[in-house]
Amino acid sequence: MSLHAVIMAGGSGTRFWPASRKKRPKQFLPLARGRLLIQATIDRLAGLCEPDHVWIVTNAQQAKALAKLVPGFRKDRIVVEPEARDTAPCVALATATIAAVDPGATMIVMPADHVIEPEAEFQRMLRRGAELAATGALVTFGVRPTQPATGYGYIECGDAVDRAEPRAFAARRFREKPDRATAEQFLRHGGFLWNSGIFVWTVDSIRRAMHHGNAALGAAADRMLAAASAGQTAALRRAFRTAPKTSVDYAVMERAERVVTVEATVRWDDVGSFPAIASVGTADTAGNHALLAGGAAQIALQARDNIVYAEGKRTVALFGVEGLVVVAVGDAVLVCPQNRAADLKELVEHVRATGRDDLL
Amino acid sequence: MSLHAVIMAGGSGTRFWPASRKKRPKQFLPLARGRLLIQATIDRLAGLCEPDHVWIVTNAQQAKALAKLVPGFRKDRIVVEPEARDTAPCVALATATIAAVDPGATMIVMPADHVIEPEAEFQRMLRRGAELAATGALVTFGVRPTQPATGYGYIECGDAVDRAEPRAFAARRFREKPDRATAEQFLRHGGFLWNSGIFVWTVDSIRRAMHHGNAALGAAADRMLAAASAGQTAALRRAFRTAPKTSVDYAVMERAERVVTVEATVRWDDVGSFPAIASVGTADTAGNHALLAGGAAQIALQARDNIVYAEGKRTVALFGVEGLVVVAVGDAVLVCPQNRAADLKELVEHVRATGRDDLL
Repeated sequence: MSLHAVIMAGGSGTRFWPASRKKRPKQFLPLARGRLLIQATIDRLAGLCEPDHVWIVTNAQQAKALAKLVPGFRKDRIVVEPEARDTAPCVALATATIAAVDPGATMIVMPADHVIEPEAEFQRMLRRGAELAATGALVTFGVRPTQPATGYGYIECGDAVDRAEPRAFAARRFREKPDRATAEQFLRHGGFLWNSGIFVWTVDSIRRAMHHGNAALGAAADRMLAAASAGQTAALRRAFRTAPKTSVDYAVMERAERVVTVEATVRWDDVGSFPAIASVGTADTAGNHALLAGGAAQIALQARDNIVYAEGKRTVALFGVEGLVVVAVGDAVLVCPQNRAADLKELVEHVRATGRDDLL
Repeated sequence: MSLHAVIMAGGSGTRFWPASRKKRPKQFLPLARGRLLIQATIDRLAGLCEPDHVWIVTNAQQAKALAKLVPGFRKDRIVVEPEARDTAPCVALATATIAAVDPGATMIVMPADHVIEPEAEFQRMLRRGAELAATGALVTFGVRPTQPATGYGYIECGDAVDRAEPRAFAARRFREKPDRATAEQFLRHGGFLWNSGIFVWTVDSIRRAMHHGNAALGAAADRMLAAASAGQTAALRRAFRTAPKTSVDYAVMERAERVVTVEATVRWDDVGSFPAIASVGTADTAGNHALLAGGAAQIALQARDNIVYAEGKRTVALFGVEGLVVVAVGDAVLVCPQNRAADLKELVEHVRATGRDDLL
């Protein structure tokens, strides 16, 4: 089996401001025990895929950040999206690019900005997914919910596929981010897993599923493959722009005939906020979490349950405070209570409204 | 009358850490509506004393900071203490230096790191003091207490000297920092003023009072004057080191025969902590105080009653927090509740104990 991995690094987002910026979204932050999330994502694939089988799909701006911040990554494995058109065209572009050089490829598709540990277990889970993908299934990975989260999509599981480990189920239905009551129902019912956003499929399966789910998408995917195979970059970009602006979940997965969900046996977090990243790391005895990079330090006295994110040669001193998030980077400092960290978007909107786009 | 001013800039202190450091004590912080406290102290004298009649007494380390941070100040008006020996030798050194060039001088002596406003009223008050000093009195300035402060010395006032304004009283007694109960008693009694640490006297009066209060001090002062008059720098330094290590309050003022206290008609604050400096400045409608210098900015959303001190090209964003002090300077950030700001010394001790002397 020829296994490729596609890392989707298009995300932006405001929930890590002022650490994350337009030009430096979350995946470029050192949130993975000191490593950049995207570097950890690349490292996690070592031993699973050949280095030249690892691809990153991203936009032009982030491609520059990538070249600068992950200088070891092969430039010819960076696939630049001509424009943002949601995930379905993005997957079609990656598929065409890989199929052009390796028509029999099996593809892992995964986000750049999640925390997944441990690596060995991740690879075992992915290998299991690749075996199932070889049977023609579109394979997803589901995380057993620990709380009625309303920020994740859910996968409703059906019958077990076989008796091998990690366990795999026929995916019965995809459920978009539910309201609280529905999420609680999912949790009580027990047959629902969080959609991790990680997929495995063969080039053939995904191309078939695109045609099946959305004819316009399938046709655009065909044009992309033709252009990629002919080495026609301009044509490939044109073909990309003809693809419908839709998500792979909606246009492909929810309509696919055979979707299998492997139950994730890893610790997984999509790292949606500072409190989330802290829950992955380790705290001192007073419950203070420090996420430090580039020579940063933390000093805490009579301080409890705080989260500090700092970069560069600076020390963050906490004295007598509790339950705060403190972020200190080059040109900005943020102080907010942890229970408001999920609302950071409001502050970012305020920053924009006050004309400080330079900080975004 | 030939009026000179001596600015005593020897203080260090930890209550403004991490803004203040060993090499950059409080007087070099931009706490005077954007100006350095020492610059504001110099500016406050304009029109009252000739520029070449303004002197700064400081230690060798701060003399360097002074030359760098207040480049406009005349180098030949900086008097460097050979070593720290409390305020009495310091006053003797300043007196000798001034008497050597202007034997008939009247001297104002004042700290470098207080906030005093408005300037015109300050000058009116000092002129009144200088007139009283011309009669041979040692003149002090007392601030009407607004609370039973235990951090200030008090002056017990006796009879009014005359009917002129601002009011002046014979100083009956100096009372060192009292305990709470005593301070409350002072406040109830009404005849007590805070000792502002500002003095006016003639060269003759202070020299006589030094001899009267402490013979060893008087003798050392004589040796300093002889050396200064002869232009013998090394001898002056040697003479300084022979002076007893004592304060001008204890060795001179408390024992002097004629001390007069002018009631200060200015807004005065010795700026003992971040909350104190904020009380001098102005807040936004939500009660947030911003002390910003060197291009720093503040953004506050759903934040109340915070104090931000920031220097350099950085923005401090407060979101949903209340009652905090946030300090952001080059290599350090501090977050602490306002009601712990007076205990910052504990944190500074902790910083020292953890081996981070580089931050002090």
